[in-house]
Amino acid sequence: MPYLSTPLDAAFHALSDPTRRAVISRLADGELPVTVLAEPFEMALPSFTQHLKVLEASGLIASEKRGRSRWCRLERARFDEAAEWMAAERQRWADRFDRLEAYLDDTHKDDDEHGKPTGPLGA
Amino acid sequence: MPYLSTPLDAAFHALSDPTRRAVISRLADGELPVTVLAEPFEMALPSFTQHLKVLEASGLIASEKRGRSRWCRLERARFDEAAEWMAAERQRWADRFDRLEAYLDDTHKDDDEHGKPTGPLGA
Repeated sequence: MPYLSTPLDAAFHALSDPTRRAVISRLADGELPVTVLAEPFEMALPSFTQHLKVLEASGLIASEKRGRSRWCRLERARFDEAAEWMAAERQRWADRFDRLEAYLDDTHKDDDEHGKPTGPLGA
Repeated sequence: MPYLSTPLDAAFHALSDPTRRAVISRLADGELPVTVLAEPFEMALPSFTQHLKVLEASGLIASEKRGRSRWCRLERARFDEAAEWMAAERQRWADRFDRLEAYLDDTHKDDDEHGKPTGPLGA
């Protein structure tokens, strides 16, 4: 699927489902065997493991066989990558508003120095 | 589509495509008419507007007709909602490691107070 071609594509796709987000939340408290991880979800195990496969393919979780159980854990690097993309965009936005505010402050100071503005709002 | 049923589902789905993330980045610098917004993307306009529709349906952007142009802008509330979900999970994770560290510190202090541990690692 070409639209899942980059790590960020796959990470955000994995996060676009409430079951998968709930799995992330549960694993944030610590690693768990699949059977225990599945308990709170009212879902057949094959459907649940399908969600785990999407999460694992995205790099957001990893799993490991230990004896007769498969254990799942969060993979922090991929999650951080997605979170940092979002944080960077928010920062970009905040910077834009800071510049806008600085511009408006300057404009206002000019008004104070040179008398009332002559535009329609100041008439 | 039931799997796009919550606002967060739709927001993360919208973010799972590189073109749509690039649109978000461009709009973080300010609102733009669709024709200008489309310029850097090597894509037929109908495909591009399809991406805009996904973004608008997710609530991440809004658009408005002004004269003969349609202008797009970011909708901060929905973006913040998604970013805050991610920040909350990271915090949960950080808290877990803080607790683990505190536990290990305590265990180590006990070792210092009561002599060397008698387990296999301290033997």
